[in-house]
Amino acid sequence: MYQKRGDPAGGSLQGWRQRLYTIIFESDTRAGRWFDQGLIVAILLSVAVVVADSVPALHQHWSGLFTSAEWAFTLLFTLEYLLRLACVPHPWRYATSFFGIVDLLALLPTYLALLLPEAHVLIDVRVLRLLRVFRVFKLTAYMTEYRGLALALHASRRKITVFISGVLMVVLVLGTLMYVIEGPTNGFTTIPTSVYWAITTMTTVGFGDITPKTDLGRFISSVMMLLGWGTLAVPTGIVTSEMAAQRQATQGLAAVPVTTRTCPECLSEGHLPEARFCMHCGAPLPPWAHDV
Amino acid sequence: MYQKRGDPAGGSLQGWRQRLYTIIFESDTRAGRWFDQGLIVAILLSVAVVVADSVPALHQHWSGLFTSAEWAFTLLFTLEYLLRLACVPHPWRYATSFFGIVDLLALLPTYLALLLPEAHVLIDVRVLRLLRVFRVFKLTAYMTEYRGLALALHASRRKITVFISGVLMVVLVLGTLMYVIEGPTNGFTTIPTSVYWAITTMTTVGFGDITPKTDLGRFISSVMMLLGWGTLAVPTGIVTSEMAAQRQATQGLAAVPVTTRTCPECLSEGHLPEARFCMHCGAPLPPWAHDV
Amino acid sequence: MYQKRGDPAGGSLQGWRQRLYTIIFESDTRAGRWFDQGLIVAILLSVAVVVADSVPALHQHWSGLFTSAEWAFTLLFTLEYLLRLACVPHPWRYATSFFGIVDLLALLPTYLALLLPEAHVLIDVRVLRLLRVFRVFKLTAYMTEYRGLALALHASRRKITVFISGVLMVVLVLGTLMYVIEGPTNGFTTIPTSVYWAITTMTTVGFGDITPKTDLGRFISSVMMLLGWGTLAVPTGIVTSEMAAQRQATQGLAAVPVTTRTCPECLSEGHLPEARFCMHCGAPLPPWAHDV
Amino acid sequence: MYQKRGDPAGGSLQGWRQRLYTIIFESDTRAGRWFDQGLIVAILLSVAVVVADSVPALHQHWSGLFTSAEWAFTLLFTLEYLLRLACVPHPWRYATSFFGIVDLLALLPTYLALLLPEAHVLIDVRVLRLLRVFRVFKLTAYMTEYRGLALALHASRRKITVFISGVLMVVLVLGTLMYVIEGPTNGFTTIPTSVYWAITTMTTVGFGDITPKTDLGRFISSVMMLLGWGTLAVPTGIVTSEMAAQRQATQGLAAVPVTTRTCPECLSEGHLPEARFCMHCGAPLPPWAHDV
Repeated sequence: MYQKRGDPAGGSLQGWRQRLYTIIFESDTRAGRWFDQGLIVAILLSVAVVVADSVPALHQHWSGLFTSAEWAFTLLFTLEYLLRLACVPHPWRYATSFFGIVDLLALLPTYLALLLPEAHVLIDVRVLRLLRVFRVFKLTAYMTEYRGLALALHASRRKITVFISGVLMVVLVLGTLMYVIEGPTNGFTTIPTSVYWAITTMTTVGFGDITPKTDLGRFISSVMMLLGWGTLAVPTGIVTSEMAAQRQATQGLAAVPVTTRTCPECLSEGHLPEARFCMHCGAPLPPWAHDV
Repeated sequence: MYQKRGDPAGGSLQGWRQRLYTIIFESDTRAGRWFDQGLIVAILLSVAVVVADSVPALHQHWSGLFTSAEWAFTLLFTLEYLLRLACVPHPWRYATSFFGIVDLLALLPTYLALLLPEAHVLIDVRVLRLLRVFRVFKLTAYMTEYRGLALALHASRRKITVFISGVLMVVLVLGTLMYVIEGPTNGFTTIPTSVYWAITTMTTVGFGDITPKTDLGRFISSVMMLLGWGTLAVPTGIVTSEMAAQRQATQGLAAVPVTTRTCPECLSEGHLPEARFCMHCGAPLPPWAHDV
Repeated sequence: MYQKRGDPAGGSLQGWRQRLYTIIFESDTRAGRWFDQGLIVAILLSVAVVVADSVPALHQHWSGLFTSAEWAFTLLFTLEYLLRLACVPHPWRYATSFFGIVDLLALLPTYLALLLPEAHVLIDVRVLRLLRVFRVFKLTAYMTEYRGLALALHASRRKITVFISGVLMVVLVLGTLMYVIEGPTNGFTTIPTSVYWAITTMTTVGFGDITPKTDLGRFISSVMMLLGWGTLAVPTGIVTSEMAAQRQATQGLAAVPVTTRTCPECLSEGHLPEARFCMHCGAPLPPWAHDV
Repeated sequence: MYQKRGDPAGGSLQGWRQRLYTIIFESDTRAGRWFDQGLIVAILLSVAVVVADSVPALHQHWSGLFTSAEWAFTLLFTLEYLLRLACVPHPWRYATSFFGIVDLLALLPTYLALLLPEAHVLIDVRVLRLLRVFRVFKLTAYMTEYRGLALALHASRRKITVFISGVLMVVLVLGTLMYVIEGPTNGFTTIPTSVYWAITTMTTVGFGDITPKTDLGRFISSVMMLLGWGTLAVPTGIVTSEMAAQRQATQGLAAVPVTTRTCPECLSEGHLPEARFCMHCGAPLPPWAHDV
């Protein structure tokens, strides 16, 4: 059981910024949960607008609505961005953190469009706004699962690097080989194109926009496919054995409740409910504000 | 060994409804098995009729036969539906249960066709009749295996949710990126279309109806494929390690014979042979009718 | 170590048939190995002839050679077939065994061509000759591995049956759904065709000869692909966990040398070197003829 | 801890050749690391040149630059090759070793182009230069991971052989069957072509350049896909269980630092830091030169 010192002490420490901080950066209180959920809805809606705007049929009818909605969301996110800066002890440190940069990039495109209205370039950058969605995980109980997957992938990163580099070499060799055998007449116009084809084949995607025509080419690609088939097994084997090992390792360990407490100094998350100091930078943590 | 109180006691309790109930809802007696097997054959035949009717060549020759067969099956299933209602203690509870609704929906389309004879709409709903086939499992020894699979999938549902949501985000970002790079001229007409393409590629399906034409687009999709390849490993890893864990967990446990006894109150299944009360709602179970 | 009673006793027991039997059915002696290896070469060559004959360029130049080679192999296999019948105690039992039927079917087509010379039909049946190649395994040290795979697949046959039946239902439902949504105009001409398309998609093959054109159709097929992706994991999980379990089970067990001894009564194989009686039918085995 | 005898003794033993040997063949000293890294960069650049030269747009503008760069790299690699020969005790043994042959083959094409300037043939052989890249691994800490993968694949080579041979048989039978059913009119022109199609389908690549048109053909290929789907699981199962087993086997074993020490006699690598003699041929190893 945790000794409750959250709510009483919480208010005493630098008043509204403290409360705002808890609402915007954490989500263990009702207000915080509401804020985050609202934010997610807003993000999804703004993405939906971008997507819908790309459909000609919808564009010509509702382009006006889309543009205004676009602006509404941009202003909303701008306000949120400023609030974040306002309630963080070290605004600059937040502005230069990963999510700080993402938040900024998510705003720029709309404003940029005022100076240079190339829709083309605009939409391109707009996509970054989607990265906001990753924040969703901050408030799900799925966080631990997410960590599990990330851990397994991280643990097997070296095996996978070796594997990928090997695949790249094979693909480059085979791609060039096919370029020589089939040649531009059969669609293998350049070595890059052939390598693209080789990757398409090895990964069993097989678009079919480029296909071997000569018998030799077909024989070699048959070997490639069987090769690719076998190789498909390797990453699976890596990740699977990694996960099995993890499962054993974590067996018997007690699961700890995940909080969304955020260190005001280094903005790191996932501190234990009873933690008094940040486990990464050692800075004192504000008391844990949560609903009883 | 189970104390045999089934057959003698069985008849004494509310006569023909009891017997009908045992035949229609359970399949441990010869009559019950016959009924269920006959039902499956009927379902498969009725489906076969729908399928065959869709083939123009067959349609123009045998449409008359198909329509009458269609009606025959519909009437048969209607009779069965009424009988089920008749022998269940709480007809309404059955009518509102999952299979009760499926049974009703499997009948409606043919009758609906009388009022509004749009074959098009008709066939659409007809498909639901196929769901009946799931009932087959009720009488197979494969039930335990089925449970095993379901359990493994259920246990890893959260990991998979995280995984799918991650994939969806990646697919959305990459789809939009390709929409910007390739543009409508190369078939990436709208963002939804591009996302559809991205999913086609990440899952290594690769229809080839839409393919990148520009070099940059091909480079990005090459990265996507390798990405998708690696990602293919994750769900496999999840399910596999889950199954391995399950296998260990169930090791040494004694296997219990699966019956098709159905609780008359909550219509739940899979009760043990010696069970006297429903393990879900605590209602007294009718004695187990089975062949010696 | 095994007590050597093979060679001395071997000859005494019904002379040449015994020796022939050892040569044709077993391969632990030099003669036996030579016979089997020669047979494999002959089979591969005869297959090569069929394949080469299908290439127009080669056909018009060498059709004469191919036909004669075809006949040479047929006569060779006929002779072998008669010899097998000659040295087996119960010819009829062999003729009705799996390999006996395959051997016969491998001969018929060429003779059939004399009566009704439809090359088309002919080639069709000819393919069965390939099944002979499976006999190759009889003499490889890979037999144990082969058993291992077979065992793993056999052990998980029920899980896989449940899985396949589930997939078939999903494919049927989704196929019909797509038939309704896309309709004949977009290539989904009949329900069987749509189901074929659904299978193509779920298995991530994605030929691209039939592709959804409508937005709804594309949405549904996107869901199908993600579904198929996840489902791909299940059979892998089944087989993998099965193999891992097997590995544990067989750990610490002593490996026994695999012989090709064949029971003259029930024609079963894989008896231990020191076995005196068939482990399947209990009939006395001829002594083990092998090279020291 | 290793007793440091490397640096002092190193110089005393046959002076500059010893030093050159350490630089070229090993990479535990700063010089050696620099040399290897520079070599990799050179290889990648030379490959990049070949690739870029294949793009028409780049070719017509920079063909002159590419040719000269081509020659520059060739001369550089020639010099390196001669240096290797110079500092190895047994030049011939190196020249006949795997990497010795690769090094030579990587040089020939450019010189060959002087005599017979068929660019076509030329590029074909040039590809072999890529094999040099494999040398990269020599200096990565990923070597152990690389070994791990190789080991797992090696351990399951027999299972995989059986599997591949089985697949080949199935593919041959089904390919011929489709050739008979679909025939040349539907694109299945020859049996080899049909087998190529069968492989395309079984491996779920599905180019779509050849697709079944008849209903029977579609039915059979549907079965093939489900078959191929199930089969995809087998190699994965093999490799995965192999890796899991390996992980267990190596658990608790102490990891040893991997050096790039190379035996001057048999050119084998991966000797321990404290090794005095080659573990493969027993020849005395030169002291380990490394930075403190």
